[in-house]
Amino acid sequence: MRSNQFHLDELAQLVQGELIGQPKLLLSGLASLEQAQSNHIAFVNGDKYLAEAQNSKAGALIVTAALKEQLANHQNFIVVANPYLAFAMLTHQFEIKVMKRGIESTAQISPSAIIADDAYIGHYVVIGEDCVIGSNTIIQSNTRIDDGVEIGKDSFIDSQVTLTGQTKIADRVRIHANTVIGSEGFGFAPYQGKWNRIAQLGSVRIGNDVRIGSNCSVDRGALDDTIIHDGVIIDNLVQIAHNVQIGENTAIAAKCGIAGSTIIGKNCIFAGAVGVVGHIKIADNVTITGMSMVTKSISEAGSYSSGTGQFETNHWKRTVVRLRQLADVPLTKLVKQIDHMQAQIESIESTLKSRK
Amino acid sequence: MRSNQFHLDELAQLVQGELIGQPKLLLSGLASLEQAQSNHIAFVNGDKYLAEAQNSKAGALIVTAALKEQLANHQNFIVVANPYLAFAMLTHQFEIKVMKRGIESTAQISPSAIIADDAYIGHYVVIGEDCVIGSNTIIQSNTRIDDGVEIGKDSFIDSQVTLTGQTKIADRVRIHANTVIGSEGFGFAPYQGKWNRIAQLGSVRIGNDVRIGSNCSVDRGALDDTIIHDGVIIDNLVQIAHNVQIGENTAIAAKCGIAGSTIIGKNCIFAGAVGVVGHIKIADNVTITGMSMVTKSISEAGSYSSGTGQFETNHWKRTVVRLRQLADVPLTKLVKQIDHMQAQIESIESTLKSRK
Amino acid sequence: MRSNQFHLDELAQLVQGELIGQPKLLLSGLASLEQAQSNHIAFVNGDKYLAEAQNSKAGALIVTAALKEQLANHQNFIVVANPYLAFAMLTHQFEIKVMKRGIESTAQISPSAIIADDAYIGHYVVIGEDCVIGSNTIIQSNTRIDDGVEIGKDSFIDSQVTLTGQTKIADRVRIHANTVIGSEGFGFAPYQGKWNRIAQLGSVRIGNDVRIGSNCSVDRGALDDTIIHDGVIIDNLVQIAHNVQIGENTAIAAKCGIAGSTIIGKNCIFAGAVGVVGHIKIADNVTITGMSMVTKSISEAGSYSSGTGQFETNHWKRTVVRLRQLADVPLTKLVKQIDHMQAQIESIESTLKSRK
Repeated sequence: MRSNQFHLDELAQLVQGELIGQPKLLLSGLASLEQAQSNHIAFVNGDKYLAEAQNSKAGALIVTAALKEQLANHQNFIVVANPYLAFAMLTHQFEIKVMKRGIESTAQISPSAIIADDAYIGHYVVIGEDCVIGSNTIIQSNTRIDDGVEIGKDSFIDSQVTLTGQTKIADRVRIHANTVIGSEGFGFAPYQGKWNRIAQLGSVRIGNDVRIGSNCSVDRGALDDTIIHDGVIIDNLVQIAHNVQIGENTAIAAKCGIAGSTIIGKNCIFAGAVGVVGHIKIADNVTITGMSMVTKSISEAGSYSSGTGQFETNHWKRTVVRLRQLADVPLTKLVKQIDHMQAQIESIESTLKSRK
Repeated sequence: MRSNQFHLDELAQLVQGELIGQPKLLLSGLASLEQAQSNHIAFVNGDKYLAEAQNSKAGALIVTAALKEQLANHQNFIVVANPYLAFAMLTHQFEIKVMKRGIESTAQISPSAIIADDAYIGHYVVIGEDCVIGSNTIIQSNTRIDDGVEIGKDSFIDSQVTLTGQTKIADRVRIHANTVIGSEGFGFAPYQGKWNRIAQLGSVRIGNDVRIGSNCSVDRGALDDTIIHDGVIIDNLVQIAHNVQIGENTAIAAKCGIAGSTIIGKNCIFAGAVGVVGHIKIADNVTITGMSMVTKSISEAGSYSSGTGQFETNHWKRTVVRLRQLADVPLTKLVKQIDHMQAQIESIESTLKSRK
Repeated sequence: MRSNQFHLDELAQLVQGELIGQPKLLLSGLASLEQAQSNHIAFVNGDKYLAEAQNSKAGALIVTAALKEQLANHQNFIVVANPYLAFAMLTHQFEIKVMKRGIESTAQISPSAIIADDAYIGHYVVIGEDCVIGSNTIIQSNTRIDDGVEIGKDSFIDSQVTLTGQTKIADRVRIHANTVIGSEGFGFAPYQGKWNRIAQLGSVRIGNDVRIGSNCSVDRGALDDTIIHDGVIIDNLVQIAHNVQIGENTAIAAKCGIAGSTIIGKNCIFAGAVGVVGHIKIADNVTITGMSMVTKSISEAGSYSSGTGQFETNHWKRTVVRLRQLADVPLTKLVKQIDHMQAQIESIESTLKSRK
């Protein structure tokens, strides 16, 4: 396999860090502190990793100046303000990228499609009428790009993806394997006990620098478009229903589902398996913790949760018995009543005492 | 891109509505009230959209007679009893349909498969032994149809679908991209600490007019078949385990999961991310609200729910602390005890008063 | 279609059971007690199926010696200690297996890939550089195997699968349709309001006898590998995030999600739609019931749960009202206070009585 090698000074320069130690130390990979060998560089993500860093066999460490002072047994460092960010930047150097360009002979491309000369179109990709594929964009094998889909430049679409519904994708977008964008929204008009399909006529618009994981479903809008704004990152197995809008730089973890026409603000963070009902609005800077059910609009930034937390099963079963009684227990009123009774008892006791 | 245009009188006739205004008004699309331009027709779905309708630039509106009276600033209408249903019907006119017929040269089709002359088989579709594809059915590119699968007429199977396990699909069925039907059920016999695979020998039967979204998994039965009856509609990322049966016209929203051998009645509605345990029965006309966990059979029509609802996270954390205490709090007994104590106190007070 | 037929004595020998009845009875299938006809063999999984067994038309029954005594109206039996296990073994005889071997002409295989002579590579499979496919392994059509992926012997990879990230797969592994293994983990360094992608450099290692269902996502590690140990079985639509480790023979049902870097022990059972947060450890022999949220490490074997259970919706709504009050109700303290008040009341009553 191909692999990438760098001298320590090259890596230091890439992250604009201070080099301490041997400039020409040859490094062939990034590794965790635990797994690193002498030809690896590792990063120290705060004081709590100091013991692990001291014991690490890594040839070089990415650290802050303060951390460096506590790692006297190491000799080679890149000193930066934010080691985690520097690590993130260096991963791109060691990544094995797709270097192929051009169109594989087995790709089926409509004559009306426009493909940039320096794009890559893999084997058995099928591209329909009037599609556009921008410069330096990679389409991996077996992917299906239906009529009218457009993709900007510097994007990466992995294998077995289906892009349909005239989806428009901007620049530097990454879509992982087996994801479906632009499929038909779940719209039916009930009439006389049957479901009458509403053909979906809207599309999907995906902004710059969006990342969508594997096995996701993003549906086209009913009339207007489903919109994912710039900088949104989405993990695997996520459902985005028709006419949802997701604001800039919002992060959505795996297995979330957003129901139709809901509008989500900017810079939100949804942990795994969150569910959001349709036709609501969520403000900017909202965090939803894992597996929460969001049932109504959220107008204020903050953190929101639901669920019962984790129980040992026997404890849980007894708790559920109580939960089933809870509806008939007027809690707030009872607390007041108990306070009132306490006062009554004290009054009685006082009366009794005075009459002794 | 192709697009469809219609005169207002044509559209009125299609929905058997009353035409008011210019019969030959040319309309090139359906749109939402907000986005519509003068060449669009929009629909007004009740009084609450009246203000939006008054401000809409739509060239024509689909309305009830009562709504029409309140839209004096508009001139072109289709008047019907049910505007939402009329809208649903008209979406099919403006939809861009797959017009191709025949078999693409790159499709791999077993000699024993029977393909209707007016079906369409896309590029890189692979069709196995003894398959049958009915009249006017569309199979989009890169889809895999394994040995013994049969599909009726007027059906639509999108790209990257896998149909296996000798699945039998009836007429007018729509299956969206990257869905898997007929894959092996999750059946294992535990023995001496290991899982012994049970090869799944049943199949899947899908009725007429069924709709299944993208990225769904419908497993073949262990011995008998998994059955999805006529008119069922299923959204994206849904799991239907082996030997499940789903009754006619039931609707299942995205991210639901139905465990093995469960039987669901007719005309049920499952909101998003509902989970249903295996080996239970759910009656006809049951609604399950979003993210609910169904743990036992439901024998009566009605609506069922679970979960805690949505909390601000700090409030939720304090609630979870109380939930952990709840098992040891005999709620019903306490309420009775408090009532009894209240009576005792009142009796004491009365005694004290009488002795004054 | 091909089908398999066996004499009763052959089947008895395969499961090392005692044959009772006609040795040369010809059986063409396994069936459920209810659906079985005279050419089928069925199994009786305990006393509770006795009535069904008595009414079954099955030509032969797999039973224990004790069950056999109660089925006088049947004549042909295979008597074993564990009928369910015997049934599991016999399903493999009646399964229709892929008998093809060799490489289909349309498969695209890199010259540097090594494919065993007796492997099968289906139509439109794309195999990248330096891949290895072991003896007797089946790769179904349209699957994508990216550079550096290795698969052992006797494995089965269904259609539309994407294997990437240099995933290493051992022997006798089954991966069902449209699953993605080795896609990029969800790793981003937040900086100045944006998400900086961390290129994922780790891989995925999958042990012997692992089974992964359809539409699953298993992500490659950030630096170290994601690891699924021998004998693990995973159902459909499951998310396994980067750097997760799953211990031997653990079973994970459909729609579960395991967040990043979590380590799960051996012989665990996760029911459907369980969610597990990242960076925790779960001991061996832990059971998690359906739809539970696991929020912290579990150090002791046992069963764990969460959720509220299933409510009629109106009851549930009233319960949620109470849940919202619960945080401000000091339950444990109130119970003590009530007990104390009860004692006070009794003391007062006693005082009053003595003063009568």
